[in-house]
Amino acid sequence: MTTTAKHYVLTISCPDAVGIVAAVAGFLSGHNLFITESEHFGDVITGRFFMRTVFLDRPGMPSPDELRKSFAEVAERFDMDWRIHDSTRKPRVLILVSKFDHCLNDLLYRYRTGTLPIEIPAVVSNHPDLQRVVEWHGIPYHHLPVTKDTKAEQEAAILEMVDRLHIDLVVLARYMQVLSQDMCRALSWRCINIHHSFLPSFKGAKPYHQAHTRGVKIIGATAHYVTSDLDEGPIIEQAVERVNHTHTPDDLVAIGRDIENVVLARAVLYHTEHRVLTNGAKTVVFRR
Amino acid sequence: MTTTAKHYVLTISCPDAVGIVAAVAGFLSGHNLFITESEHFGDVITGRFFMRTVFLDRPGMPSPDELRKSFAEVAERFDMDWRIHDSTRKPRVLILVSKFDHCLNDLLYRYRTGTLPIEIPAVVSNHPDLQRVVEWHGIPYHHLPVTKDTKAEQEAAILEMVDRLHIDLVVLARYMQVLSQDMCRALSWRCINIHHSFLPSFKGAKPYHQAHTRGVKIIGATAHYVTSDLDEGPIIEQAVERVNHTHTPDDLVAIGRDIENVVLARAVLYHTEHRVLTNGAKTVVFRR
Amino acid sequence: MTTTAKHYVLTISCPDAVGIVAAVAGFLSGHNLFITESEHFGDVITGRFFMRTVFLDRPGMPSPDELRKSFAEVAERFDMDWRIHDSTRKPRVLILVSKFDHCLNDLLYRYRTGTLPIEIPAVVSNHPDLQRVVEWHGIPYHHLPVTKDTKAEQEAAILEMVDRLHIDLVVLARYMQVLSQDMCRALSWRCINIHHSFLPSFKGAKPYHQAHTRGVKIIGATAHYVTSDLDEGPIIEQAVERVNHTHTPDDLVAIGRDIENVVLARAVLYHTEHRVLTNGAKTVVFRR
Amino acid sequence: MTTTAKHYVLTISCPDAVGIVAAVAGFLSGHNLFITESEHFGDVITGRFFMRTVFLDRPGMPSPDELRKSFAEVAERFDMDWRIHDSTRKPRVLILVSKFDHCLNDLLYRYRTGTLPIEIPAVVSNHPDLQRVVEWHGIPYHHLPVTKDTKAEQEAAILEMVDRLHIDLVVLARYMQVLSQDMCRALSWRCINIHHSFLPSFKGAKPYHQAHTRGVKIIGATAHYVTSDLDEGPIIEQAVERVNHTHTPDDLVAIGRDIENVVLARAVLYHTEHRVLTNGAKTVVFRR
Repeated sequence: MTTTAKHYVLTISCPDAVGIVAAVAGFLSGHNLFITESEHFGDVITGRFFMRTVFLDRPGMPSPDELRKSFAEVAERFDMDWRIHDSTRKPRVLILVSKFDHCLNDLLYRYRTGTLPIEIPAVVSNHPDLQRVVEWHGIPYHHLPVTKDTKAEQEAAILEMVDRLHIDLVVLARYMQVLSQDMCRALSWRCINIHHSFLPSFKGAKPYHQAHTRGVKIIGATAHYVTSDLDEGPIIEQAVERVNHTHTPDDLVAIGRDIENVVLARAVLYHTEHRVLTNGAKTVVFRR
Repeated sequence: MTTTAKHYVLTISCPDAVGIVAAVAGFLSGHNLFITESEHFGDVITGRFFMRTVFLDRPGMPSPDELRKSFAEVAERFDMDWRIHDSTRKPRVLILVSKFDHCLNDLLYRYRTGTLPIEIPAVVSNHPDLQRVVEWHGIPYHHLPVTKDTKAEQEAAILEMVDRLHIDLVVLARYMQVLSQDMCRALSWRCINIHHSFLPSFKGAKPYHQAHTRGVKIIGATAHYVTSDLDEGPIIEQAVERVNHTHTPDDLVAIGRDIENVVLARAVLYHTEHRVLTNGAKTVVFRR
Repeated sequence: MTTTAKHYVLTISCPDAVGIVAAVAGFLSGHNLFITESEHFGDVITGRFFMRTVFLDRPGMPSPDELRKSFAEVAERFDMDWRIHDSTRKPRVLILVSKFDHCLNDLLYRYRTGTLPIEIPAVVSNHPDLQRVVEWHGIPYHHLPVTKDTKAEQEAAILEMVDRLHIDLVVLARYMQVLSQDMCRALSWRCINIHHSFLPSFKGAKPYHQAHTRGVKIIGATAHYVTSDLDEGPIIEQAVERVNHTHTPDDLVAIGRDIENVVLARAVLYHTEHRVLTNGAKTVVFRR
Repeated sequence: MTTTAKHYVLTISCPDAVGIVAAVAGFLSGHNLFITESEHFGDVITGRFFMRTVFLDRPGMPSPDELRKSFAEVAERFDMDWRIHDSTRKPRVLILVSKFDHCLNDLLYRYRTGTLPIEIPAVVSNHPDLQRVVEWHGIPYHHLPVTKDTKAEQEAAILEMVDRLHIDLVVLARYMQVLSQDMCRALSWRCINIHHSFLPSFKGAKPYHQAHTRGVKIIGATAHYVTSDLDEGPIIEQAVERVNHTHTPDDLVAIGRDIENVVLARAVLYHTEHRVLTNGAKTVVFRR
């Protein structure tokens, strides 16, 4: 689902105004650059404008840095938050897991077959269980156990890895630890969690058991950015499945695994394709 | 979706035990009765058993009352809550509405085309707006306005109608009034509400606006029995639809209408076909 | 789901090239016009480019005709098929029906509540059955029976109405007649049919019975433009629902009605909001 | 999603008649056996009756063989096709693959985590590519290349394995070879294929490319029993996903992989839980 030719992704967020699209498109056509995808959205409630534009690399075009320097003038005029991402640099993803391995298995499969175009420089877990499957993929496995007393230093070790390995995105693939407020802040907008319920229903622990108790007829999963407010982070993607009275909590857990896999994989793909922009406590997701 | 030949529906709820199905099936075959549908469910958590069996009318069979008398012995042996429903008696449904008319329009269409095999002896509203369309269907329209001061007597008037018109089911088709605790109790397990959110998310007022603020990627609707605990009643049916960042609260309201229609119509159909059994604060729904 | 402020919709289709978006956006911002929605798509296989841009009316702006004259220069440069649609002119829709009335009822409800912002100058049917409900909405009902012998003149009468009433779109809302090749050509890209199957499965007659015979686990409906090649027209929208072995053909028909309603209503909305562009035998649908 | 206590599954198919359920339930309760699940279905069109009943093992109950001998009398009375399956014997599944590995990976994951309670005595492929991942799971990998000239002997080798390894089910997990008529007959009702389209749409080769050419708005996958009539086998399970004009054939292939995984896994689970009964060219699937 990715453009395979070498390309760039320009993402923009700024106050809405007349002339933004013209300025951006004019800039790109002025450099004779070919746009393959472009989406924008003006939020009438917040008055904010969001844009994602994909353009192809072409022989003789300015270098990315020259392009950035040149675009800065346009950006300043409209007070833009913006970035130009280079498709040849695969996003570097650090995966955190505990013992449940379905999301890990799914991400590793998409990674090794190239359907999720990312690098995975390391997997971190607070348990030793999943070492074998991770190392089979040629990925270093870091067992960093955590207790109440060692939480601060364990998180420091993870953050040190994030820095040292130039990590772009941390993925909590059913990592059963609540991150500290400091950790959440440090990873702001670059840490995705999969919550095993259709948020905002069933926040907190054992959501499938909560769903069973409430007798809902549909269950779901939610991928969201991690914020210091547990399970309240901006939602990136959700999906659901029908259930009924015959399903025990264990059945819901089993059904939920397939939903979690797909939802998390999509959220990681959207993020790494720069399709997700931040809009206050919400997201703009330029999904296809 | 209904068996059109004359038939009976036997519903049973009792403590689970060896021999229930044999006793029920043996009873029916002993009277040479032909079963067309039968579903049962044993809840391993509560130890309770639920059953719904449809059997055809045949020439020379005992009258329904004789059958009931005869079945009472079986029922007593297993401590059953049970009923034998006669398909020739269409359930009598009282619809309560305010000003939003999409659910009303949908129910009236299904009623007049016979796809929802019910009688509608009356429609009650706290507003006069929908009189014309209701009366066009040949159904009496009762405008019963309500204020804080007149709530008790307005509800008394409705309950009087429920009695006088032999109403089996009250449907709140976007009726924008909170029923009193007494009214809820009086209509226990025979009053269905459509809530315009995917419960338990977004209880209370303006759920689509809540959904917009939270930035969910899927919205839904929930049909549930009314209990004194607002929006906490046993869920009968739910459905959902994808939304995205471009949808304003008004868009969600518009998308929601189609979901509400289908969910409420299904819940009313399931109830009137005796597919819904009560299991504590939850439902067993023998949907196809 | 519609922008309610007065606005214009510019639709474009042309060979893909560098600079199209810049030229269009530059044109609009040059007239100080505010874009609220814009989507485009370049088909890498056919090399064709498609665009839909919504911009707001503002005091003092050029008249639509001046705007069109002025835009023609841009359009010519890129060899565009293009139109500027004025939101204040509601599309005029002629509905054709036979005896099945669920789609008609659904469209009439959306029409009378304003959720489908169209005019319905007339309804035509080859049967008299649905006159009462149509006239209740204040819409003229034309009973034009048809036999093999009278088909040519009946179609001529319909086409004459299309001209005289300035019809923008003809909707076959379960109209059980196959249009002649001439009629199909005359209504090219402005006639939408609802086919009661998930095309290309089960073309032709009695698709729900075909679906039952094949034992599919999901059924669907398809809204498409009518072409002279029966059931092969460009698809605008599809939706599906799960079914199972217990469903008879009649059950499938009943379940299908709800799908048909939603699919047809969406297709008509997309068309009348100018969201559907033609791409050979396929459509580009800029749905939200 | 499986009953974990030791249990038996009784499956029945016979001409419909009064008294079947009573006879079966009476038989089981006569042996003091506890039913945990039971579903039946009478096909009004073919007049055939289908039943699946799960009952628990209990201390002192007759041996399965005694039970079978004893039940034979009941079965004969109603002319039943029937079996009593013992849950302690895990179904033995032979997987056939070519080069696409997503379904294989998914099945192996479910196998190694126990969510799909099967044995996999061997994997056969006409290519060597997937040896490493299969052997990592401790499963023998048989590379059996095939050409037009060697097809007969390659199939003979597979059938020999089916016999020797006491295989209950052969799964074609994107096995890109058309089985011979003889092979199809030999594996009748015990060979499941995943077809990468929403059958009966897009039979034959390259269905995602066919879907792209036709411009459908929804794609799907179908798991079915293999018969000598290619892609016409009885359908067990189907699922779908929305797509749009922006998706290239390669995108459809990528989206399709997730659908294929889930559909095939469900079909294998249903089959191995004895939930699928045959009804002419169709299936009765007692899914929950």
